[in-house]
Amino acid sequence: MMRPRVGHIQFINCLPLYYGLVKNGVLWDVELMKDTARELSRHLLESKLDISPIPSIEYSRHWRELTLLPDLSVSCDGAVTSIFLVSKLPINELHNRKIALTNTSRTSQVLLKIILEDKYHIHPSYFECPPNLGSMLREADAALLIGDSALHIHYQVPNGLYAYDLGSEWKSLTGCKMVFAVWAARQSFALENPELVRDVQRSFVHSMTYSMSHVEQVAKDAARWESFDADFLQAYFTTLQFSFDTEHQQGLKEYYRRAQALGHIAEMPELTFLEV
Amino acid sequence: MMRPRVGHIQFINCLPLYYGLVKNGVLWDVELMKDTARELSRHLLESKLDISPIPSIEYSRHWRELTLLPDLSVSCDGAVTSIFLVSKLPINELHNRKIALTNTSRTSQVLLKIILEDKYHIHPSYFECPPNLGSMLREADAALLIGDSALHIHYQVPNGLYAYDLGSEWKSLTGCKMVFAVWAARQSFALENPELVRDVQRSFVHSMTYSMSHVEQVAKDAARWESFDADFLQAYFTTLQFSFDTEHQQGLKEYYRRAQALGHIAEMPELTFLEV
Repeated sequence: MMRPRVGHIQFINCLPLYYGLVKNGVLWDVELMKDTARELSRHLLESKLDISPIPSIEYSRHWRELTLLPDLSVSCDGAVTSIFLVSKLPINELHNRKIALTNTSRTSQVLLKIILEDKYHIHPSYFECPPNLGSMLREADAALLIGDSALHIHYQVPNGLYAYDLGSEWKSLTGCKMVFAVWAARQSFALENPELVRDVQRSFVHSMTYSMSHVEQVAKDAARWESFDADFLQAYFTTLQFSFDTEHQQGLKEYYRRAQALGHIAEMPELTFLEV
Repeated sequence: MMRPRVGHIQFINCLPLYYGLVKNGVLWDVELMKDTARELSRHLLESKLDISPIPSIEYSRHWRELTLLPDLSVSCDGAVTSIFLVSKLPINELHNRKIALTNTSRTSQVLLKIILEDKYHIHPSYFECPPNLGSMLREADAALLIGDSALHIHYQVPNGLYAYDLGSEWKSLTGCKMVFAVWAARQSFALENPELVRDVQRSFVHSMTYSMSHVEQVAKDAARWESFDADFLQAYFTTLQFSFDTEHQQGLKEYYRRAQALGHIAEMPELTFLEV
């Protein structure tokens, strides 16, 4: 029996989960691999990982090979503060304009396209590039930013630019929560090792509960190593939602329905969960 | 300020250190990268890591770029039980015979050559190959095994084969302890961040002390995931030495002196330590 190989998103939004893993000694019983959500998804599908958080869009493309872990996600209900469209023009004037897309999050790229199509009925042209606002806005009229660079926008919107929080935009379009990442096991691994996957699921839920009930300390400890202060981090961590209840599931299905209608995914995935 | 990037040897001999890191919450304050000792050494020299355990032979080749962390090593004083020469013939009959070398440890390769040259005065021919005893002994009269496969030899020597523990052989040749790995920081990083390196050094020493004073529990927890039982692991962990006192340093210098005399390293490295 080997330790299960488990992925961890190496981004500030999953710091509370990691904090809980550290404080609860869980890292002894899993082989943790840190990477971007997209890379983790690739490793999971290539059997280099057994269990991992993956972007919502990746789940929809490979759901037949995967089993979801209950009660875990990275979601928001309204503002998310770490995914922004930053624009030289008001958003409704972006028709036929060029938009630069950060190349690190397909889930957010599709989310932006849904919002612009379904809410504003505009059709810009898109191109992918690395996440640097300056160079993005030299080539384009607007830019999709996620992660640290988006959090800096939330901190202070640069003079003369418009900034749209995609969590808020999604909420006002659909009334739904937005799910950015889910936790999944390879189905074959979950069938062969159901107890082990349940152990990992319980440990992660426990870690997250621990962190959220100590969120002030998490933020204080995180501020030692991050480029944001503790108050800002605490506000961010409590804006995020890490559970995966029926409202989250409804929001995820609404995202998939709209993504499919616009041709971004081939079919509606089923949400198949590990039995716990 | 970023978390220091710290290497960890992903092998059973460093499990006690990892256990202490987990139990003491240290993994929050370092960015841990797990790999083989040789790969960690490469990452350290390429500035992908700041602090790492590295094989003794790698320190000798790059000591001018490195600063040693005091009080940390992976050593033995006599039998090591995880590095064996397994032979079809008694060791003193291996002159001009072929010896297969596990390709994962240069430090052990040089150690074997020193023992055969200096103690038995024999000159076999060597070739490198993956660590599989069966295929090694189809091509060669003896094989250098390290790690898990060597521990299995210690558990039970296969019928009709001779097995020589290189820790014991070194001790009987020199009377010295043998140091297999040392902890080092890139010198430039240590000069710029002396307090941070001292923090990491203290945490690691503290973790190791914690683990060795709870070694029965470490072995019990490790046995859940390893292919050895708790008693065997406890015996192995207490056979290893993780300190780096003057006797270890003398043993390391003796190893370097003999390695240089036989042409395996170009010069005697200085042991330059971080001031703590």
